[in-house]
Amino acid sequence: MNSIILDHGSGGLASRTLLEEIVYARLGNPQLHNGGDSAILPAMADHRLAFTTDSYVVDPLFFPGGDIGKLAVHGTINDLAMAGAMPKALSLGLILEEGLLIDELGKILDSIASACKDADVAIVTGDTKVVPKGKGDRIFINTSGIGTISPLAKLGNERIKEGDAVLLSGTLGDHGITIMTRQAGLSVAGDLRSDTMPLHRLSAKLLDSLAEDVHMLRDPTRGGVATVINELLADSGLYLEIDATSLPIRPQVNAACELLGLEPLYLANEGKAIAVVKGDRAEEALSIMHSMPEGKEAVILGTLEREEKKRTASLILRTTTGGRRLVAPLQGMALPRIC
Amino acid sequence: MNSIILDHGSGGLASRTLLEEIVYARLGNPQLHNGGDSAILPAMADHRLAFTTDSYVVDPLFFPGGDIGKLAVHGTINDLAMAGAMPKALSLGLILEEGLLIDELGKILDSIASACKDADVAIVTGDTKVVPKGKGDRIFINTSGIGTISPLAKLGNERIKEGDAVLLSGTLGDHGITIMTRQAGLSVAGDLRSDTMPLHRLSAKLLDSLAEDVHMLRDPTRGGVATVINELLADSGLYLEIDATSLPIRPQVNAACELLGLEPLYLANEGKAIAVVKGDRAEEALSIMHSMPEGKEAVILGTLEREEKKRTASLILRTTTGGRRLVAPLQGMALPRIC
Repeated sequence: MNSIILDHGSGGLASRTLLEEIVYARLGNPQLHNGGDSAILPAMADHRLAFTTDSYVVDPLFFPGGDIGKLAVHGTINDLAMAGAMPKALSLGLILEEGLLIDELGKILDSIASACKDADVAIVTGDTKVVPKGKGDRIFINTSGIGTISPLAKLGNERIKEGDAVLLSGTLGDHGITIMTRQAGLSVAGDLRSDTMPLHRLSAKLLDSLAEDVHMLRDPTRGGVATVINELLADSGLYLEIDATSLPIRPQVNAACELLGLEPLYLANEGKAIAVVKGDRAEEALSIMHSMPEGKEAVILGTLEREEKKRTASLILRTTTGGRRLVAPLQGMALPRIC
Repeated sequence: MNSIILDHGSGGLASRTLLEEIVYARLGNPQLHNGGDSAILPAMADHRLAFTTDSYVVDPLFFPGGDIGKLAVHGTINDLAMAGAMPKALSLGLILEEGLLIDELGKILDSIASACKDADVAIVTGDTKVVPKGKGDRIFINTSGIGTISPLAKLGNERIKEGDAVLLSGTLGDHGITIMTRQAGLSVAGDLRSDTMPLHRLSAKLLDSLAEDVHMLRDPTRGGVATVINELLADSGLYLEIDATSLPIRPQVNAACELLGLEPLYLANEGKAIAVVKGDRAEEALSIMHSMPEGKEAVILGTLEREEKKRTASLILRTTTGGRRLVAPLQGMALPRIC
């Protein structure tokens, strides 16, 4: 068995062999292996549940800092984390193209297994389909996830108020620029790598300490920080002015952005959170972030204000030369397959 | 907006427009529309949960009796139903190929909405990705689902015992043969159509009446009835002899199988359940099935036996001419994209 063949999608013995020798060998656990088409999870008592899904079609499959498998685990964990939930169970849906090398599939599954272990969550149910050569692109992955929401979490754009502080847990655009430069075949000086990282511990610690004073959590993936902030401004009718010099951006990301003419605020991140907290808890939230590896470069972006003479609901960037410019919602970039 | 463009996958305004005008317009509900990346579900108290995922890559997208959207809703509902669960929430992951007609997407989403309404379940969270032309095949769909398991359900191959009866809820192979004949460009006399259908009401009614005397439920999709039965025989060490004349098969399915040289027991079904029940409850289970539209052609396939002189763990078909032959597990058919 060197590569995926159509038989692997038949539901017969070839499917079974692929599952047992390649998938269960890496991801095996009693729930996944029980043979039924559903995993059985214990009762979650009085916990509200978060439920999320994401498909991953990133190109290239392997990139500095990660691969499609790691991304699929982290991305879904982070969607749960941003709802204030601890991940309890993940599903894995594979769409394999005929001809995919079993070695590549194995590497991706190893990476999924390792990301699950690091985050203390398991793949409990899955599905594998095979499409003929030319009808897919090696591998697409869907992960869905269930998490139990902290009773302390009261999150949502509707909770955002004037005077709230907006925090960003780390550097901007590492994932987006890593993928884009690879897609463009550019070689950039310095160590450019994806920031893919699970954020459930960061969000849990914030909620444990600040409880309902955390008003919103979102991870700025596709569309970047600018898109998340523009959405929350539109929903709350407030405005935010941020200082370009305060934005944490790695020099090599900045260099690549200048080369490609990109705005870092629009770049995708895969291990960053935006947190909106009550204004007087901002410093506390910042120290919590700083105390954890996933938040050590966190910054306070600014305070949400209602100012009548300015246009409301807009994101203003104070530039290094003292100018001020509007950062509009992303229109579209025609740069597909970032995640 | 006539067809999908790469911008629809950017996460920016084009993505938002696609979601609001095309997706939410059809599937909209407060949970889906809340803007976050996770749906928030109420606590399910002391219910065990079933969690399942399936990707759908069926070709053609539209076929007599259904389409990829309907199939994606029913398939995931049925995986939950076979775990003894009532579906509570579904997710929808779309992988769209650049160039997909918005009209086609709309038709598929209409079909998803209608299947959800019929089954009284909602799409509560979703994700949309776009891949460049030639890197996908119009549309692939992932649906994951959460259901609450009936406290009466005690299901699993390990509960199967000698003397148990095996029931099949209706005709064999309608879905598989419908798709295969379309793929082969064959025109077959008579009304050949997929059996795609939700089975959660059937399973709930069986469990309500027979409770723990239902020992196993499975839907014979890819790999067909033969694969499900061979697996349960392998796990239980029993054997089953069934009478070919007792198998419910539509004449047009039989005709197509003869033309294509296919065994109906291997064909995929999308609206059928196999139930293993305590032997003395078999007639009761059969009348319950007969009382519902989804089970009106149900049959008792036979009784699980332990017979020393025969090979255990095998499925034997008594043919119309009085012969007896072994129906082995499916080896592989190289017939992809049945679901």
